[in-house]
Amino acid sequence: MADNKNRKRFSGRRNTSAGTGKKYKAGNTKSYVRKKKQPDKPKPSVRIAFLGGLNEIGKNITVFECEGDIVLLDCGMAFPDGDMLGVDLVIPDFSYIEQNIDKVKGMVVTHGHEDHIGGIPFLLSKMNIPIYGTPLTIGLLSNKLKEHSLFNSAKLNVVKAGSKVKLGCFEAEFIHVNHSIPDSCAIALHTPAGVIVHSGDFKIDCTPFVGNMIDLHSFARLGHNGVLAFLCESTNADRPGYTATEQKVTSSLDTLFRDAYDRRIIIATFASNVNRVQQIIDCAEKYNRKVAFSGRSMINYMKVAEELGYLRIPKNMLIDIDMLSRYTPEQVVLITTGSQGEPMSALSRMAYSDHRKVVVGERDFIIISANPIPGNEKTVGNVVDELLKRGCKVIYEGMYDVHVSGHACQEELKILQKLVNPKYFIPVHGEQKHLRKNAELARSLGMDKKNIYIGDIGSRIEISEDYMKEIQPVSAGKVFVDGLGVGDVGSIVLRDRKHLAQDGLIIIVASLDVYDGHVISGPDIVSRGFVYVRESEELLDEIRAHALTILEDCADNNIKEWGTIKNRIRDDVSKMIGQKTRRFPMILPILQEV
Amino acid sequence: MADNKNRKRFSGRRNTSAGTGKKYKAGNTKSYVRKKKQPDKPKPSVRIAFLGGLNEIGKNITVFECEGDIVLLDCGMAFPDGDMLGVDLVIPDFSYIEQNIDKVKGMVVTHGHEDHIGGIPFLLSKMNIPIYGTPLTIGLLSNKLKEHSLFNSAKLNVVKAGSKVKLGCFEAEFIHVNHSIPDSCAIALHTPAGVIVHSGDFKIDCTPFVGNMIDLHSFARLGHNGVLAFLCESTNADRPGYTATEQKVTSSLDTLFRDAYDRRIIIATFASNVNRVQQIIDCAEKYNRKVAFSGRSMINYMKVAEELGYLRIPKNMLIDIDMLSRYTPEQVVLITTGSQGEPMSALSRMAYSDHRKVVVGERDFIIISANPIPGNEKTVGNVVDELLKRGCKVIYEGMYDVHVSGHACQEELKILQKLVNPKYFIPVHGEQKHLRKNAELARSLGMDKKNIYIGDIGSRIEISEDYMKEIQPVSAGKVFVDGLGVGDVGSIVLRDRKHLAQDGLIIIVASLDVYDGHVISGPDIVSRGFVYVRESEELLDEIRAHALTILEDCADNNIKEWGTIKNRIRDDVSKMIGQKTRRFPMILPILQEV
Repeated sequence: MADNKNRKRFSGRRNTSAGTGKKYKAGNTKSYVRKKKQPDKPKPSVRIAFLGGLNEIGKNITVFECEGDIVLLDCGMAFPDGDMLGVDLVIPDFSYIEQNIDKVKGMVVTHGHEDHIGGIPFLLSKMNIPIYGTPLTIGLLSNKLKEHSLFNSAKLNVVKAGSKVKLGCFEAEFIHVNHSIPDSCAIALHTPAGVIVHSGDFKIDCTPFVGNMIDLHSFARLGHNGVLAFLCESTNADRPGYTATEQKVTSSLDTLFRDAYDRRIIIATFASNVNRVQQIIDCAEKYNRKVAFSGRSMINYMKVAEELGYLRIPKNMLIDIDMLSRYTPEQVVLITTGSQGEPMSALSRMAYSDHRKVVVGERDFIIISANPIPGNEKTVGNVVDELLKRGCKVIYEGMYDVHVSGHACQEELKILQKLVNPKYFIPVHGEQKHLRKNAELARSLGMDKKNIYIGDIGSRIEISEDYMKEIQPVSAGKVFVDGLGVGDVGSIVLRDRKHLAQDGLIIIVASLDVYDGHVISGPDIVSRGFVYVRESEELLDEIRAHALTILEDCADNNIKEWGTIKNRIRDDVSKMIGQKTRRFPMILPILQEV
Repeated sequence: MADNKNRKRFSGRRNTSAGTGKKYKAGNTKSYVRKKKQPDKPKPSVRIAFLGGLNEIGKNITVFECEGDIVLLDCGMAFPDGDMLGVDLVIPDFSYIEQNIDKVKGMVVTHGHEDHIGGIPFLLSKMNIPIYGTPLTIGLLSNKLKEHSLFNSAKLNVVKAGSKVKLGCFEAEFIHVNHSIPDSCAIALHTPAGVIVHSGDFKIDCTPFVGNMIDLHSFARLGHNGVLAFLCESTNADRPGYTATEQKVTSSLDTLFRDAYDRRIIIATFASNVNRVQQIIDCAEKYNRKVAFSGRSMINYMKVAEELGYLRIPKNMLIDIDMLSRYTPEQVVLITTGSQGEPMSALSRMAYSDHRKVVVGERDFIIISANPIPGNEKTVGNVVDELLKRGCKVIYEGMYDVHVSGHACQEELKILQKLVNPKYFIPVHGEQKHLRKNAELARSLGMDKKNIYIGDIGSRIEISEDYMKEIQPVSAGKVFVDGLGVGDVGSIVLRDRKHLAQDGLIIIVASLDVYDGHVISGPDIVSRGFVYVRESEELLDEIRAHALTILEDCADNNIKEWGTIKNRIRDDVSKMIGQKTRRFPMILPILQEV
């Protein structure tokens, strides 16, 4: 970097003040003795392995290794892409961590969003490592672990922003940042090789609705003392300017509450956006409306947030959704999930008249206080359309400032990069275009191209004062969770699901004589997802006749190898159907010997 | 409307000048005699049925009926939604037209986009009605009909903008508009009940890159003389302001051609956007680059456009894609399809290193000169990411003004509404939110709420000087085209495909003794898209054992009704698998009697 002259020498210096973490069950057992520099000894280095969050949105997890100790940072999940048919969620491949289980001192968690904590239950079911996070983060994680029956055995440690945790040769410093969930932190990892700062998810909000502004002073102190590497989130790296302050939403909400007048207000937002919900509750108080929550995750999040003091609900304001009917529309606000148009969410059910308790209509004023995540535009649009058709007034997308992002835009990214002033810059959290944009920002600030590293999942680097180099990659990937199954749905299963989804299947089943191979029973044709059977009997008859010919021909020619017979049926029938319909259903010949 | 005082009385007056259509094979046989007004006779009315384009994007088609004559306006297709698994395209339900075939005098087509002409081959395969459109529209349609072997029998009639066509008691006046394809028109239908104007797709471009500005004078004339109803497109009705002029793209392209410098330029745009391609070609000429086309539809469109004189390619500029390797990167521009990230498109193939002729890398400068259509954001993003990973420089989304919309924004919509000055306003072309926004615009201009009609597909209205009322709806819907099949994929087939896509299937096949019902062979278990079979043998064994128990139990209890046996297998096995895996694959029991 251009202004690197005043950089202090990396010293591995660590502030050993104990921090305010409540119960450190592990991590500080191994005492770290600061080594005297010896000129012939190589300088210490840190290895960083990226198991998720690069070239993808979500599933954030990073592995730091130094002097035989490993610290994990976050362990998130991702939502499946459209082509991951039937997959419920995607988690990281943990095999590299499993191989190095003995080295793992613990995990630090930056905040309580699913893309940062959603993978933890799946990791803990393999290894019970201690976890460190801020109160709300640990509170939300506890809830999640209870669902997986892992809470009782888990080693959860509450750390306050501003304090530090010792984990082997590492010391993790939690630094308060602004984001769309309270209690979010960046982490400064003090290592023998130098300080590595990970931004977590952040934005710079000088006037947050609740709590303090991001702790820029700490970033400045770290930057002043010398930072080896900065891993910086890239989610909004392609958006110029600044993310607006959360306060902007306040005035919009106030206007809309007035506009709603005698109508019921239904607001959809992210369940995790506790501060947004607080704003809505404050507004409801002002306009004398009761508040009800709808959607399982909304209810769960709010329960935890209220218990831990992150949500203030005035007495007698909260009502159960079952009580809605006892109030007139102008007396209530319903806060609900479904801002992304998720098919099973509360808002979607209302839109499609499928909600057990809420029927929407002309007396409803619906506010979608969130932007569609890329890929969800269409489903959100469909929900809006359905609500409009039912006569609801709907506020969506950019109609009012009812949502601000939780992530830093370009100017904020640049400010933090300059404050942290690292030797090496590593953009994280984002698709290729976001990572590249963030790297471009660093370059525009004078960072040398060779000091910037854009990785992929599985990539591993080694950095020290003297160098940053890519080393042997580790196994990493997408592990699919489908129902209770973890990792048992892979590319073959998905390929089959895709084939079945595209053109359906045809089963050709026959019983063959065990002696001469001739057909005793069948062939019967069963099809699903191919054509409407009742109107296609002629075609199915042709398929049956064709299959019978093949089977008898095989028997006549003494072809008894079932693999051969099945292949012939598959190929010939597929060809015939392709010619007639230009569709290529999966063909499943099933033979039985009698 | 507030300023309606000067409205002339609707007179059914028609300008009978012959127009310049080249060959009118039909439509003007029935002579229309203007009736003298009789006070006791009801005033003539027009019925409008909407078979597509309302509450959906695409599949535009409208049916006008008056005094026993029917005229169709456009007949488009739509692309399938994500939940229409395996469906290639969606066309309108033609049954209402088929029922009234004798009345149909012909179809007028506004322009050559797929959402306006894509359904025509499927309609013509049922009934051979005469079609009227501008030269490029008919040229593109001809190409399409050749692919369906319908060209020779088709009755295609070329009409120039500004001229009129007589179709029974209707007279259709073609009015030049600006849009993202040349030769686009609005239609003024002169009917005995009054003039009905349909905007087609339009924008107001005062400085189009090629051709004239939208013929506002004609709209003004019609409005001055009195318009009964205005059917106005709504695509961009939720966007404030104006759509930028196509000229804006020119300067961006020029800048980017300079920036590309010694790199190969690859530009993806809509194949139908002939004027955009012309701009690119002009730029290529200026910067002394050869041009190659990639993608079947791009090549087809450009062939038609050039033949008809809508595309001017300098001599010796066009090269075949096979010749690319003979030139250095800075000598060529490749114009390609794939701006929407379509998986099989040329650009996608390049991005995923799957293109037979083009390998992209660091010497490529790629411009995506189109915005993602809602729903395509993710696929476009993936293609961009892949190109970036290969080291290409990629210009996408809002990075430069390399795309402007083809549709009118709010200010343009308002201007046209005021010029046309209709008695009744009917927003068309759009989802509910677009239709409502367009209606709101009309209301903001003083239109009475009761004179605005928002319909749905299947809706039918009757309008006259005195009233607009909704009448008996007609059958309308989405007909799915899958391969060669039209309409043979319906809700049951889609439901099965969705089920199969979600959790795959398990086939349980057994041969039973014809006498006592006991199992002779099997049960065999075949699964696809459920679990990775090799790692789940234990589970499959359990399923087999469970199925065997059920079958033997049925035999022991003399249950011989196969429906009953199959239901028991389905229910019991599904329950068992659900408990173990929380997945619900399709269970297909197949029994054979031996």
